[in-house]
Amino acid sequence: MSNLNRQLILAEYPESEFSESTFEWRESEIPEPKEGEFLVRNLFLSLDPAMRLWASSVDSYTKRIEIGDVMRGFTVGRVVSSKHKDFKEGDIVQGLDGWQDYGISNGINYNENGIQDTWNIKNIVDAGLPISSALSVLGHTALPAYYGLLNMAQMKEGQTVLVSGAAGACGSICGQLAKIKGCRAVGIAGGPEKCKLLVEKYGYDAAIDYKSEDLFEAIAKACPNGVDIFFDNVGGDTLNAALANINVGARILICGAISQYTQYAQEEVPGPSNYVALLTKRARMEGFIILDQYPEHRAKMESDMINWLKAGKIEFCDEIVQGLENAPKVINKLFRGENKGKLTIQIADKTEIERAIKAI
Amino acid sequence: MSNLNRQLILAEYPESEFSESTFEWRESEIPEPKEGEFLVRNLFLSLDPAMRLWASSVDSYTKRIEIGDVMRGFTVGRVVSSKHKDFKEGDIVQGLDGWQDYGISNGINYNENGIQDTWNIKNIVDAGLPISSALSVLGHTALPAYYGLLNMAQMKEGQTVLVSGAAGACGSICGQLAKIKGCRAVGIAGGPEKCKLLVEKYGYDAAIDYKSEDLFEAIAKACPNGVDIFFDNVGGDTLNAALANINVGARILICGAISQYTQYAQEEVPGPSNYVALLTKRARMEGFIILDQYPEHRAKMESDMINWLKAGKIEFCDEIVQGLENAPKVINKLFRGENKGKLTIQIADKTEIERAIKAI
Repeated sequence: MSNLNRQLILAEYPESEFSESTFEWRESEIPEPKEGEFLVRNLFLSLDPAMRLWASSVDSYTKRIEIGDVMRGFTVGRVVSSKHKDFKEGDIVQGLDGWQDYGISNGINYNENGIQDTWNIKNIVDAGLPISSALSVLGHTALPAYYGLLNMAQMKEGQTVLVSGAAGACGSICGQLAKIKGCRAVGIAGGPEKCKLLVEKYGYDAAIDYKSEDLFEAIAKACPNGVDIFFDNVGGDTLNAALANINVGARILICGAISQYTQYAQEEVPGPSNYVALLTKRARMEGFIILDQYPEHRAKMESDMINWLKAGKIEFCDEIVQGLENAPKVINKLFRGENKGKLTIQIADKTEIERAIKAI
Repeated sequence: MSNLNRQLILAEYPESEFSESTFEWRESEIPEPKEGEFLVRNLFLSLDPAMRLWASSVDSYTKRIEIGDVMRGFTVGRVVSSKHKDFKEGDIVQGLDGWQDYGISNGINYNENGIQDTWNIKNIVDAGLPISSALSVLGHTALPAYYGLLNMAQMKEGQTVLVSGAAGACGSICGQLAKIKGCRAVGIAGGPEKCKLLVEKYGYDAAIDYKSEDLFEAIAKACPNGVDIFFDNVGGDTLNAALANINVGARILICGAISQYTQYAQEEVPGPSNYVALLTKRARMEGFIILDQYPEHRAKMESDMINWLKAGKIEFCDEIVQGLENAPKVINKLFRGENKGKLTIQIADKTEIERAIKAI
């Protein structure tokens, strides 16, 4: 680690997937925090499907990243120095400090609308759980499952919960929450290996392989009482097939639309023609952006999830790749369905991470 | 009026619009009510877009009509004889007594799930309003506007409310409710004549002619602050263009999808590709079937609407066509956008109707 801050800069808006020319390296001085700010040494960086939206030439749910800016990203890091009342040197935080070694934050960078984006994760350290889990099973990939199913959809015992992208960072938690609440959980994933994981590791009652099965038929078969809740990470044909199988009063949670992201800034992709089922089934389809829910729901989610983890009721899998330099290549795994768990980049080396944990 | 009951029977499921061969006439004995039933002499019959769904070969939000059964329809009629505790001879009721001279009802025929479908409309008679309005501005075409905007969408002063099918029976009320609540009301309709009506009669702030304007551009222009609530009667391209213009937290109410009904039982029609806006804008799209809401919301709607009508705050237009025999031809006006107001068939003659009103 030098005294310079290595940064990955957005060099151009990708047309479909990220490519080598999407990013450029920049090395700059490590910045100093001003009043109300703090400096974070990033230890881990989360790679997320939403990054493809952020790096589109059009604004999505948040402002696009401008060409020449540091690529945005959720991070876990150590506060190096602070002029902020809520964060002090040595704190380990989950923040939004980007694809770089060091980030400056005021704690509410997100979208310029003042939503807190940085949280002290001492509870996670105290529970003896890996700090990288603040980017997965105890972070922004768990909260959608938790908030979506428990708050938005008001999931109840005996309901059938269908999940797409079910082997993914968020989907794998959805199935387990559904089982904790006494629901039937049916997961959709790509390939026999992932489908096996769904049933054997994540507790799904049934798994559907979208690569080899007719989705409509397979959903109908795996959900003999119809679909009460559909948690959608995928969109496209998957959403359309799910809509054709919903019950009266169903809740469709649009958490993501990964099948559509790489096409986002381009021409129209087909919409779900079965949306008319919303009418005939008096159903609701609702999108949500989890950062909105952090302030109100994060603490309760963290506490419940830590308890379920300790009780062995939740399994998770972080796929940690060493080295910030690998982020641009590795992220495309998400759009190809090649990742095996929550994709995370380890920016700092093991010794530095252990020292940071010990010091708090 | 003979002693026989003239009935229009569903003879085949139409492929697109209704045609001459869709229905057959049947004449049968006027039935006798059993215990818990009452006999209604139908005076008016409502013609509604939803009838196309009911007459599909697939079930929609309610059971399909079987071939050989009387065509279903909302009616206003006089109770001729009754063995039901809540309805007595001479009552004028709004019910679901079908395309026929006489219907037998137990008051809860709808969909076999026990939802009350027959209501005494004495308040409407007492207010000096035409009884046919129980099929329009005081009935099932008003309740969606009232319940959808006020209850589901929680419409608030200063919001922008966009309405498709805005010159229709329901859409014309939407705009007026939006104005009563201090919103900006923008209506979409077909042709300059209807657009003129929207602004001059129904109080819309702006009208968009979908036949001559680019919908996306026109909505953007007419809704400079974006769309907070979209009340959709149409679906298809209209819904897609509206989705591209919604604000954060928008509410899309799917009341109907008339553009899709005639294709309902056939091959896929394109879905709204901009549904991803639900995600990026944290928005909600929800369908509803107004019969579900009758028991809880009908009385309040009737009372509020009667007050607004008396205060001159609500205009309406019933397009009343004489003679049950004209129903099969006339109904297609709805799918071609040719109706000028709420399409209603007058089954009984004027003298009989006046006598019925005088007698209560």
